[in-house]
Amino acid sequence: MIRISIDAMGGDFGPETVLAGAAIALERHPDIRFVIYGLAEQVEPVLARHPKLQAASTFHASEIAIRMDEKPSQALRNGRGKSSMWQAIEAVRDGAADVCVSAGNTGALMAMSKFCLRMMANVERPAIAAIWPTLRGESIVLDVGATIGANAQQLVDYSVMGAGMARALFEIKRPTVGLLNVGVEEVKGLDEIREAGQILRDVPLAGLEYSGFVEGNDIGKGTVDVVVTEGFSGNIALKTAEGTARQMADLLRAAMSRTLMAKIGYLFAKGAFDRVREKMDPRKVNGGVFLGLNGVVIKSHGGADAEGFAAALEVAYDMVRNELLKKISADLSQFHESRPLAATVEGDAEIEDQQ
Amino acid sequence: MIRISIDAMGGDFGPETVLAGAAIALERHPDIRFVIYGLAEQVEPVLARHPKLQAASTFHASEIAIRMDEKPSQALRNGRGKSSMWQAIEAVRDGAADVCVSAGNTGALMAMSKFCLRMMANVERPAIAAIWPTLRGESIVLDVGATIGANAQQLVDYSVMGAGMARALFEIKRPTVGLLNVGVEEVKGLDEIREAGQILRDVPLAGLEYSGFVEGNDIGKGTVDVVVTEGFSGNIALKTAEGTARQMADLLRAAMSRTLMAKIGYLFAKGAFDRVREKMDPRKVNGGVFLGLNGVVIKSHGGADAEGFAAALEVAYDMVRNELLKKISADLSQFHESRPLAATVEGDAEIEDQQ
Repeated sequence: MIRISIDAMGGDFGPETVLAGAAIALERHPDIRFVIYGLAEQVEPVLARHPKLQAASTFHASEIAIRMDEKPSQALRNGRGKSSMWQAIEAVRDGAADVCVSAGNTGALMAMSKFCLRMMANVERPAIAAIWPTLRGESIVLDVGATIGANAQQLVDYSVMGAGMARALFEIKRPTVGLLNVGVEEVKGLDEIREAGQILRDVPLAGLEYSGFVEGNDIGKGTVDVVVTEGFSGNIALKTAEGTARQMADLLRAAMSRTLMAKIGYLFAKGAFDRVREKMDPRKVNGGVFLGLNGVVIKSHGGADAEGFAAALEVAYDMVRNELLKKISADLSQFHESRPLAATVEGDAEIEDQQ
Repeated sequence: MIRISIDAMGGDFGPETVLAGAAIALERHPDIRFVIYGLAEQVEPVLARHPKLQAASTFHASEIAIRMDEKPSQALRNGRGKSSMWQAIEAVRDGAADVCVSAGNTGALMAMSKFCLRMMANVERPAIAAIWPTLRGESIVLDVGATIGANAQQLVDYSVMGAGMARALFEIKRPTVGLLNVGVEEVKGLDEIREAGQILRDVPLAGLEYSGFVEGNDIGKGTVDVVVTEGFSGNIALKTAEGTARQMADLLRAAMSRTLMAKIGYLFAKGAFDRVREKMDPRKVNGGVFLGLNGVVIKSHGGADAEGFAAALEVAYDMVRNELLKKISADLSQFHESRPLAATVEGDAEIEDQQ
């Protein structure tokens, strides 16, 4: 049995979509039990329309729902203790759930998760990990936007956490890890990236294989299982890839309706198109995973439909089933025991200022 | 008449491809005159096979060709004065050519261009500008890899230079400019980006319209004509988009050959496919433009074929015909006159250290 706490109020479409997604996930994994938080008057009527889901869930009425446009600090002030988002996270802290999923406001979710769950031992900052469709299958890219900037030690911690997630999700024994860098020769890359590479080379880890630097185009190729970068460039990469995929889909759609020949072709090739669309579909790989906290919280895309939310729930399910947190924490302590002093502690103050 | 100096030795395929590209560009723009530099024994026989091109060109034998894998410092040491790359750049400095195009080693080309042409007045650092295919047409993105990091003043200079290029290339009067940033709410963006936004808002410029922050997915949408960022994230964005476009093309190709239905569909829809492929084809929008120097140097993709190199030459042609350099330098002095003191000079030393 895997217990997932849900913030039913998150996302652009509210409880309707969230609960429909939960119902889909339950069909696929009947051993899920949901702990649902939300406003009673909005959630209860919807839940009543999903009797199977209702039977597999406990519902707790919350006083407040966090708005999608609320500032993190404001959400934390108003919603601490009594919002559905906070309570869903708290369920993980208190052991009432194994993992938490919300399609709500990312900033608020991260702020509350940090505040409620606290950082994992040996980790200084959380990261958001994305599951990225590639030519080889899927890779993990982190950090895609939790924190701007990262020193060498933090990049190494991201590498260990990302590798743990790859092992949990893809069931690979020793995932390959690459540090995202620029390839233009006159630009030699940032010092902290070079230094992180040096650390990963020097301290052999059982749980990952360090593959060196990778460039932006390596992500889609699937050159490595885990791509590590700081949150600013990671977020730019993620959004740029989403934009490019959408752009190609739009161009194709327009081109396919321009001539009769193309329209006929489209009818024949529709199955093939759908297959590609599905592979590149952000809904299918939905779910940014918050790593580095004492508990796993998964952010589903705010604009996800029921199928998208179900995909995020499935990621949550796999994470728990494969004991992600235990793996990561074991790896981190193995690493920090073999290297008791962090290499770049003096760089922290400066980086904090950038936020 | 527009005079383009060419380094015939650059690129993965050497003089054969470079000169075939020049011949294509000449067909399209018979008023181009080429000043060609390269090793005599390799260039002369190829040139002899293109009699029209030969008639429109002057050839100068060089002693040295810069290798694609040479380090910038090494290339500068060995190739200064006597390499085809240096001499092609020098032709611009000495007024023998209006613009220089090379498919050679980017690092070496940038190092030599900086050394030979020097920085333009009021500009501290060069940028590489890419022409990016979008749903609306094309946008300019800079810096895609000349320098890591940029302070607020440098981001503003990039904005002015990028807008000048958009006016020269797209013939728009007041291009819209956006600063690339992350949208995740808890991450408020870097100080220098916020500060650059403030400056662009405060100092109205005749040659550009500041549109605020944009995110990675706005690039492909064509939300603004010019997207401004520092070189690390710009390079990551460019490579990630290339990778994603290639990934989708590969997935489509694979899907289209999987079933008989799809194969038939492909035959009908081939025209439509080709149209999309052409739009997203990096060869068609080939050419990173070095901005901020006393002279325009264009880097063609090293792996470009003849058609790709011709595209870079056409960018060069348009730049000169539309007087890019004059426009940029007028804008910059207008801007710096209205704002005699740079806002963030104290940040420089720190950023230089990162390189």
